[in-house]
Amino acid sequence: MSDRSITITSAEVIDLRVPTSDQMLGSDPFHKAPDYSSAVLHLETDAGLRGVSVVFTVGAGTDWICYGIRDLCRLIVGTNLEDFAAAPIKLYRRLIDHHQLRWLHDGVFRMAAGAVLNAMWDLWAKSLDKPLWKLLVDLEPEFVADCIDWRNIGDALTRDEAVMLLQKTRPHVTEREAEMAERGPRAYCTAGWLGLSDDEILATIQKLQDQGFDAFKLKVGRDSDQDVRRIRFMRDAIGPASQLMVDANQYWGLDQAKRHIDRYRPFDLKWIEEPIARDDVLGYVELAETFADASFDLACGEQAASPVIFKQLLKSGAIGYCQIDAVRVAGVNDVMAILLMAAKFNVPVCPHGGGIALCNMIQHYGMWDQIAVSGHSQTQLVEYIDFLQDAVEQPVRVREGCYVTPTAPGWGLEFRSAFIEQHRFPDGEVWKNRSSGKKGVAFEAD
Amino acid sequence: MSDRSITITSAEVIDLRVPTSDQMLGSDPFHKAPDYSSAVLHLETDAGLRGVSVVFTVGAGTDWICYGIRDLCRLIVGTNLEDFAAAPIKLYRRLIDHHQLRWLHDGVFRMAAGAVLNAMWDLWAKSLDKPLWKLLVDLEPEFVADCIDWRNIGDALTRDEAVMLLQKTRPHVTEREAEMAERGPRAYCTAGWLGLSDDEILATIQKLQDQGFDAFKLKVGRDSDQDVRRIRFMRDAIGPASQLMVDANQYWGLDQAKRHIDRYRPFDLKWIEEPIARDDVLGYVELAETFADASFDLACGEQAASPVIFKQLLKSGAIGYCQIDAVRVAGVNDVMAILLMAAKFNVPVCPHGGGIALCNMIQHYGMWDQIAVSGHSQTQLVEYIDFLQDAVEQPVRVREGCYVTPTAPGWGLEFRSAFIEQHRFPDGEVWKNRSSGKKGVAFEAD
Repeated sequence: MSDRSITITSAEVIDLRVPTSDQMLGSDPFHKAPDYSSAVLHLETDAGLRGVSVVFTVGAGTDWICYGIRDLCRLIVGTNLEDFAAAPIKLYRRLIDHHQLRWLHDGVFRMAAGAVLNAMWDLWAKSLDKPLWKLLVDLEPEFVADCIDWRNIGDALTRDEAVMLLQKTRPHVTEREAEMAERGPRAYCTAGWLGLSDDEILATIQKLQDQGFDAFKLKVGRDSDQDVRRIRFMRDAIGPASQLMVDANQYWGLDQAKRHIDRYRPFDLKWIEEPIARDDVLGYVELAETFADASFDLACGEQAASPVIFKQLLKSGAIGYCQIDAVRVAGVNDVMAILLMAAKFNVPVCPHGGGIALCNMIQHYGMWDQIAVSGHSQTQLVEYIDFLQDAVEQPVRVREGCYVTPTAPGWGLEFRSAFIEQHRFPDGEVWKNRSSGKKGVAFEAD
Repeated sequence: MSDRSITITSAEVIDLRVPTSDQMLGSDPFHKAPDYSSAVLHLETDAGLRGVSVVFTVGAGTDWICYGIRDLCRLIVGTNLEDFAAAPIKLYRRLIDHHQLRWLHDGVFRMAAGAVLNAMWDLWAKSLDKPLWKLLVDLEPEFVADCIDWRNIGDALTRDEAVMLLQKTRPHVTEREAEMAERGPRAYCTAGWLGLSDDEILATIQKLQDQGFDAFKLKVGRDSDQDVRRIRFMRDAIGPASQLMVDANQYWGLDQAKRHIDRYRPFDLKWIEEPIARDDVLGYVELAETFADASFDLACGEQAASPVIFKQLLKSGAIGYCQIDAVRVAGVNDVMAILLMAAKFNVPVCPHGGGIALCNMIQHYGMWDQIAVSGHSQTQLVEYIDFLQDAVEQPVRVREGCYVTPTAPGWGLEFRSAFIEQHRFPDGEVWKNRSSGKKGVAFEAD
């Protein structure tokens, strides 16, 4: 071992769960009582640096992902950071194209692979003492292109096109970086959670406006009359100059979505988020045609399971906003591909936040996109939710409605050790005295 | 407990792996050295009956699925078969729409849920002393429709349309059943495995022709010139009257697929199987338009992860053959939805077989489809591969190129106990003396 190399010596995978369902935080029509959770990966090294990543989940099933990550870590313990950093696509292929594991597809497998990749990227950024976004900004266009698996997306974006896109922003990167060091990506927040009273919504809006927010989201789905009333209420509350979006969390079938959305035309909405199933590409195409003349576009992506799904949504023009998630696909490598495709098709990247520590991650993608990929901040909004920021040592912050530019090395995802000890499942303090009915799979919301 | 009820008392999940990579059986460009494996589920009851199902895999990762199935089984141990049989959709929803686990998506989660559902269907059929296909044939159309989750597929097929489809075949079911008791679904087989010499291919064809086969498949993908040569060789060997199909196992990107497939026009092929990624619906639409005037249609489905993907492929007319798999989606309930959509769009159902015990399962879907759903046998071919039939007590059989109608109760999936003991991973006889390099995830083909 050369004295410059950093070797992965061990991996710890932590099943971290927070009983958020006690207060029904973050619930939607499908996820009736989510316990915000994370499979947390700590890659330890012989250099004292730790690579950290998370896979966000909503309670039961976190252990499935932990199981997968532990298995994949057998492939990387003993490997060197230098080898990873020389060609990240090699580790991507060892995982995603593993000749036997690839049978497991998207979902648990792709998320577990993403955890490993994201922890390696974290480690790399930390070894350079850079925040993740800065590492990405500093990569050469050709290097970025070489991080991407082109097999299934080349019909939408070729490697050469990707390099050209990145070269085009290159001359302005220094200037853009200086601008965004002052003011990070513009943020938006959900004010209209299901279950909040009108007064609670007004109070939430007021609190957000005091922080400089002028873009707000509302959850819809179940009752059309009530949804229309709430949209009107929100629009009246925020005024015509603020942006308003709605989110149906995949609750509708296609025909039902058409009926519901048709009633949303009068309210100058910006987007309709996840009206239908995450993988119904042709459904999105049909909805986009149906509502081509409306004020709003369609948005989705937080549950899109692969770059191939994103490719279709972007190439077809079905979506007007590309909502990447930081932990649903296979890490930085997959997100690079998606951001570059979005840039080619001029679709603003509006990442999905919330959960545990997702905002801590997506702020880096917002930075990279707005500095070096799309190269502007004119149309993007990055989701911001202030839940559970006590879990981490570097909470995300907003100022004047924008993210405060992250400066900690890597993702800035260090968990507070007390938080981890309290919330380890099932042995942490907050879990060990609960009735078994609330523990794991056996807990059913209905 | 009433004396008529049957209660699930325990669940055993077995990680069963066969070192098929020693002979490179079943390899393709992605799965370079598959060890055919199964997560085997045994549901034990207080009535002496055992519900059996499998999830086929190709080696590493089988344990991920076993882990998931064990977790889900906590939801059904202690439940009654009668409750399941009264409304199978309820268990389907408890699993697939579980308010926390649904976050895990398709892949491992959907396959594990399918294992539980399929074992319950097996138990139900056994309690009636019927093969699975006969249980399905005997269900009332309305009951079948009530087994299906309509939320995301209703734009392609409504519940009412499904009932009408099944009612239309109803008057002919007795006659069709009698016909198919004599002669099961027509089978086809792969003769042109990658790596076989021309002489070996000829010998395979001869052996299959002796068993009455007149439809043959050839693996393609890597080398266009060599593929064209092999297709011509196969066509010459089988003559113009036999059917010839090719399978690319998702090896190509879209543009690459067009270039390769364009050279296949002269050979009167029946179908091109999995030319591109499993989830690239718009890619399939584009390929179907490109080759609309060719002899062949597109085929896929063995790796399509959800009924929503099938919906799009069928509704758009992109595929001409619907290749359901028995264990990739969530069990009988999902397959019911897919078969009914295929019937509506007049797409022949040609299930994917092979692996361990997949043919034992798909023969039931072929029977149900051809008796009661499409109600005919004019266009379908059911894949047949004779690998590893020594694993089970009731091997599948073909006669005159057709499956011999299965008569054993349930799926007929009883494994030979000696086979299980020998192949349990990692403690069975065939595994415990191997070098660790061939065990589990650490074994890499490259």
